[in-house]
Amino acid sequence: MDSIPGGVTAAQGFTAAATHCGIRKNTDKKDLALIAASVPCTAAAVYTTNLVQAAPLTLTKQHLSNGTARAILVNSGNANACAPGGLDAARRSCEAVAAALGVAPDDVIVASTGVIGVPLPMEPIERGVPVLSGALSVAGGAGAAEAILTTDRKPKTRAVRFALGGKTVTLGGMAKGSGMIHPNMATMLSFITTDAAISAETLQTALRASARVTYNRISVDGDTSTNDMNVVLASGLAGNPKITGPSPDYDAFLAALNAVNGYLAREMARDGEGATKLVTCRVSGARDGDAAERLARSVIASSLVKTAMFGADANWGRVLCAMGYAGAPFDPMGVDIAFASAAGTISVCQRGTGLPFDEAAAKAILSGPEVEILCALRDGDGGAEAFGCDLSYDYVKINGDYRT
Amino acid sequence: MDSIPGGVTAAQGFTAAATHCGIRKNTDKKDLALIAASVPCTAAAVYTTNLVQAAPLTLTKQHLSNGTARAILVNSGNANACAPGGLDAARRSCEAVAAALGVAPDDVIVASTGVIGVPLPMEPIERGVPVLSGALSVAGGAGAAEAILTTDRKPKTRAVRFALGGKTVTLGGMAKGSGMIHPNMATMLSFITTDAAISAETLQTALRASARVTYNRISVDGDTSTNDMNVVLASGLAGNPKITGPSPDYDAFLAALNAVNGYLAREMARDGEGATKLVTCRVSGARDGDAAERLARSVIASSLVKTAMFGADANWGRVLCAMGYAGAPFDPMGVDIAFASAAGTISVCQRGTGLPFDEAAAKAILSGPEVEILCALRDGDGGAEAFGCDLSYDYVKINGDYRT
Repeated sequence: MDSIPGGVTAAQGFTAAATHCGIRKNTDKKDLALIAASVPCTAAAVYTTNLVQAAPLTLTKQHLSNGTARAILVNSGNANACAPGGLDAARRSCEAVAAALGVAPDDVIVASTGVIGVPLPMEPIERGVPVLSGALSVAGGAGAAEAILTTDRKPKTRAVRFALGGKTVTLGGMAKGSGMIHPNMATMLSFITTDAAISAETLQTALRASARVTYNRISVDGDTSTNDMNVVLASGLAGNPKITGPSPDYDAFLAALNAVNGYLAREMARDGEGATKLVTCRVSGARDGDAAERLARSVIASSLVKTAMFGADANWGRVLCAMGYAGAPFDPMGVDIAFASAAGTISVCQRGTGLPFDEAAAKAILSGPEVEILCALRDGDGGAEAFGCDLSYDYVKINGDYRT
Repeated sequence: MDSIPGGVTAAQGFTAAATHCGIRKNTDKKDLALIAASVPCTAAAVYTTNLVQAAPLTLTKQHLSNGTARAILVNSGNANACAPGGLDAARRSCEAVAAALGVAPDDVIVASTGVIGVPLPMEPIERGVPVLSGALSVAGGAGAAEAILTTDRKPKTRAVRFALGGKTVTLGGMAKGSGMIHPNMATMLSFITTDAAISAETLQTALRASARVTYNRISVDGDTSTNDMNVVLASGLAGNPKITGPSPDYDAFLAALNAVNGYLAREMARDGEGATKLVTCRVSGARDGDAAERLARSVIASSLVKTAMFGADANWGRVLCAMGYAGAPFDPMGVDIAFASAAGTISVCQRGTGLPFDEAAAKAILSGPEVEILCALRDGDGGAEAFGCDLSYDYVKINGDYRT
């Protein structure tokens, strides 16, 4: 598998375009993106687990019930959640795309991100969609990746190339998300395209498996949004023998999907609101994989661990404490903890008890832009990683007055 | 029931003293407190649910297995958690108190709060205990309430007087806690004394019931500490007919315990690290009490709701979103949300959809020192309150470099 340039238009059959249509006041910020497929695609999606779900999710679920799609429309600046007429607005958005592209409305996927509770203005969208449909191109993927951003500091794209049945297959994507990020899909939007041939059912299975070890392992602030979705479209244009179930080809496809989703998920954590560093927690030696996952996620989500990481403070007691309330069984007296970064590794706790360590060396390690918290247990062979970021003054600043 | 001055020494039979013994470097900050009973007391306690428990909790559980106690020793500046020799240090602390007061070591309760992972220094404690035992007085309760503080900005004490079987009964207490506070007992210490006559078993029942609706309803940062405990000693000196089970007297006792614990819990939330305001979420009309409690706690614990409260931003979408991931069943389309404070009440959401509202009026209401988030559902008659605070720059500052 090789990384290649590009994102959501890297695979054969996909083009995109983006514009400022007027949902946002700031005319410098694109707020509408369209992704189109030249052929009918198999499609799969996973959604937020929040009981409160935005209108575009409700409609997209209906449209994907047949496992096929042709286009994705995404707006930023307005979440189209908990506002009057939300479902109607989502439906009209799909109809606008269908008319412009000459496809069926139920082959259009719609996604929104932004403020909750304000009606989605239709006029900018209905004016913007025909503009976008006339501007679709492979190069348009870069603009689309910008248009979906909210408080993100930079676009997040990734693409890989690999072989399936003697054919070259490409899989790429783009994502947004920097706040309201928590395991089980938070305000993150992620759109993946591939030219692999794969059945809708198998694509859904692969996506669920991939989300579990990528997007569901990141946490920025513990809030789970109303709007998350992760969509994959597969055009089949690579011409590989169609993947229809468990097989070596399925494994290769899943590895590529994990590579792209994993990269995009880590970039979201790194770009967490106010974040100054990417924090990874690796748990090993846990009773089983589930226990390892709970422990790693609890450490990453702890406000006290996150503020300590911001302060480059080797406060391992908070790490052990966060493991203690994770709700997973483990032996606290069997835990070793170390911190690591490009500057080195330092052991700070052995068998649940503090070790003497060089504070200056620890500070240097924790001052890096990528920090790892390593928790080695003596309970079994379960392992897991979780990704997050530190909690800084800027997180408070960004979220203290988001709407105004 | 009347509020009266005083705290942990308000009830008959209790004295206290406090000193700077040297665990902390800052000689202006008291770091050791002793509470003594003139007679054997029935005793009950509830503890942190964290799997990682500090040595003083382990020892106190042993000492309270017979339901009686005579004294409580509390230090601040060191949590005696995850450090070598912790249990031995806790044991020697109890032995020092036992020798000074002429009581059995297993009638001594010990509690610690402060940094994790550093061995508790014995010399200051063994030097300080005899000083404290010679200085015990009713007036000493005030100093004891100061000595147990860590990042708290002020002492927290409360006492009430009520009648049981024709006798006047007093119940009072002191507490500390401003960070690592989350439902199910966080780094909070709370010590309650009463002169009521009550059996150990009934006292334990009452304490469990009380903690559920007081300490377990507050959240500052979602972290649950290794050291929490809430202890009650009952001297029986009020001479009331002994409470041994369900009865009107039990109900009156529980009401007094709830009043004191509830006050101390709200003061902890108000004094949350970096907090500028006390935030209360009241849920009504939920399917049942459990659902109401989950919903209220989820709203109070949300980082995005907390930063919005800091910014006095009426971002009700975050409130509804936090309810959505609470893990409790409810109908999002049946939710009304309002914000209230001494400055008034403003409705912002009806039946799950935003209402037009006056932003300036909302800002004025949310700028008060005590803000309420009112969530009225249409699912049943379950209600609950939860208490917390906002998330400010100062939370990050306080926790970014706590150890150094």
